[in-house]
Amino acid sequence: MAGQQVYLDHNATGPMHPEVVAAVLPYIQGGFGNPSAPYAIGQENHRAVDRAREQVAGLVGATAGDVVFTGGGTEANNLAISGAFLGRSEPMRRHLVLSAIEHPSVRETCAWLEAVHGAEVTVVGVGCDGRVRLDELAAALRPDTLLVTVMHANNETGVLQPVAEIGQLLRDRGVRFHVDGVQAAGRIPVDVAAIGCQSYSLSAHKFGGLKGTGALILRDPSGVMPILQGGHQERGWRAGTENVPGIVSMGAAADVARRDLSANMAHGLALRVIFDNLSARIPQCWRNGHAGLRLPNTTSLCCYHADAMSVVLALSSVGISVGTGSACASHSQEPSHVLLAMGLDEQAAFCTIRISTGPENTVEEARWAADQIAQAVERVRLVTAPEDIGGCGEDCPCFAHSSR
Amino acid sequence: MAGQQVYLDHNATGPMHPEVVAAVLPYIQGGFGNPSAPYAIGQENHRAVDRAREQVAGLVGATAGDVVFTGGGTEANNLAISGAFLGRSEPMRRHLVLSAIEHPSVRETCAWLEAVHGAEVTVVGVGCDGRVRLDELAAALRPDTLLVTVMHANNETGVLQPVAEIGQLLRDRGVRFHVDGVQAAGRIPVDVAAIGCQSYSLSAHKFGGLKGTGALILRDPSGVMPILQGGHQERGWRAGTENVPGIVSMGAAADVARRDLSANMAHGLALRVIFDNLSARIPQCWRNGHAGLRLPNTTSLCCYHADAMSVVLALSSVGISVGTGSACASHSQEPSHVLLAMGLDEQAAFCTIRISTGPENTVEEARWAADQIAQAVERVRLVTAPEDIGGCGEDCPCFAHSSR
Repeated sequence: MAGQQVYLDHNATGPMHPEVVAAVLPYIQGGFGNPSAPYAIGQENHRAVDRAREQVAGLVGATAGDVVFTGGGTEANNLAISGAFLGRSEPMRRHLVLSAIEHPSVRETCAWLEAVHGAEVTVVGVGCDGRVRLDELAAALRPDTLLVTVMHANNETGVLQPVAEIGQLLRDRGVRFHVDGVQAAGRIPVDVAAIGCQSYSLSAHKFGGLKGTGALILRDPSGVMPILQGGHQERGWRAGTENVPGIVSMGAAADVARRDLSANMAHGLALRVIFDNLSARIPQCWRNGHAGLRLPNTTSLCCYHADAMSVVLALSSVGISVGTGSACASHSQEPSHVLLAMGLDEQAAFCTIRISTGPENTVEEARWAADQIAQAVERVRLVTAPEDIGGCGEDCPCFAHSSR
Repeated sequence: MAGQQVYLDHNATGPMHPEVVAAVLPYIQGGFGNPSAPYAIGQENHRAVDRAREQVAGLVGATAGDVVFTGGGTEANNLAISGAFLGRSEPMRRHLVLSAIEHPSVRETCAWLEAVHGAEVTVVGVGCDGRVRLDELAAALRPDTLLVTVMHANNETGVLQPVAEIGQLLRDRGVRFHVDGVQAAGRIPVDVAAIGCQSYSLSAHKFGGLKGTGALILRDPSGVMPILQGGHQERGWRAGTENVPGIVSMGAAADVARRDLSANMAHGLALRVIFDNLSARIPQCWRNGHAGLRLPNTTSLCCYHADAMSVVLALSSVGISVGTGSACASHSQEPSHVLLAMGLDEQAAFCTIRISTGPENTVEEARWAADQIAQAVERVRLVTAPEDIGGCGEDCPCFAHSSR
């Protein structure tokens, strides 16, 4: 594999599927009309957007009328949460509940609503397996709770959250439920009706589409206010000229992901076990998060005494791309809030790398990369001062640390 | 030209320049890294974004550090106006001034701030030549005025606004000046320092880039609050994974537009005169807006007694795309607020088509299209009941109606 690039950070972004590239090229090299224009090539673009709307809806069990295309997953989360808060019909209903492991686009939106717009926010913890505590969430609900927001799959650990159970809990309580599905859609089966959420976020580039396009599945728009003001595109939910190439790419990627879902999941699991097994091969190393209830493509690995950024850069020098926790936070020097919420200490958080595969990775690549990771950790440890091990202790029965 | 497509609605959107397509394809077919990731292909993408930042800044006389990439021109206008209002340090400073001919992304943002956030809004009129009345704008300023927002070039008429004079007027008054430059950037010389504005909006697809990418030139960010919350991308001004293909396309398009600016302007003027002359060829037809202070690519033509939508659809049937006023408002049945503000009546507004050319249009195409427009107007008039002519009357000395 020497000299080749092995990309293992698909939770940050990934390549487009060749079929998606083929679908989008005509809209880059020629078919450029404005979908709002009444003449023929405008209407052709309008139909392309409508087709993509059907395709994206089909990926998550929604109807086309629920799909609001946005400029990405972050905007979709902002629209779902800020839009619901700022547009609410009952001003006194201002309590928001989120989990401790949400993406910054959810955390920061809730923090902004608290700091600027008078929201009251409750953060619900997770177990050391990385799953939201249902009992704590139920206890957090108040008569003035407006919205609960919990992600479907965590971007750092891949751990799946009990969204269907939460949907069940909130049913008939008049509390909105938003699910950030950015990491889940296209990777595991998603049925928004079964979850029972009022809104669900997707990001095209996380499942083979272009960057710069996302969607909010807005199943219940009552009391939601647009966050971008302007033209009447997206039935008034999102102003701005439709990003036709991005939207077409998202539709095509949704179709491919839906068709290949079972095969991709099986393939992902075959690769994941190779990386999961590093926790047994590397001394003082464990895998973070629930063993089974996890995205098929994600392994979060704490290699104690091995600074993650050093490991990532060592791997980069041999052509391997893996992440340090979350790309969205990589410019900060803060330890991962996700891993801290799971009970890891700062040292353990700073020693955690994230390996996330995609359909194009091969078993051969994965085996080679796993060897390289083991070697990189060993080399980095030679120059890293040993410190005490973190986590929630030797007695902890959680799956996360079972391999220590 | 029969059987060919002649696209004359570049103010709605336009094709990408072949050099821009060539620049962006590598980021669609291969180079897909996340710019926030620390490994090699992440950093390659980071450098591509930085390069585009320099290119976009260079188009409008800004520095790279001023450029905030957004999901489009609408988002840039929202950030400039809502961001300044919601982030202001003096809560009592809540007066906004805009012109009567602003784009919906400016008008609706101001209306939203008024309805939801307690802003007070003053709308300043335009003359029958489509230019903002400077004396009225000066008189509208109050001690609590926070921001004035005026577009550089109008999307429907192409009329250039006196932005440098407004910048001069506001200098040293402590009033922010935002300029919506979406239709101007890449088509006429722009120097944000000479204008003296605090912020300036651009949209990539209006000058040969991809849809779904814009930029706010944020020269003075003091007291501005981000409108999308999340990660720390764009120095904290705009959360969300950077849309690398869109940003690269915007940078490449900026370079091409800057290089070809003089040639494109001369070519545009050569085409424009062909369409301007229709006001002499077609009975009861006039051109809207100032004769000279206008984008080189835009002709707004009122063909009285000829319903614009009927004319547009008739032209579409022979392969010609022209607009009805603004694409952003085309789904509404409202008459153009721009034309009404200029003194036209509703009937005249509904009989106005917009012809906006691009660098790829040829003189031959333009001549053929002009003939087709004249014929289409004649045909539509055969089935349209005559009514009184609108506008500001036979005695009006304005340039707009000089050809009647």
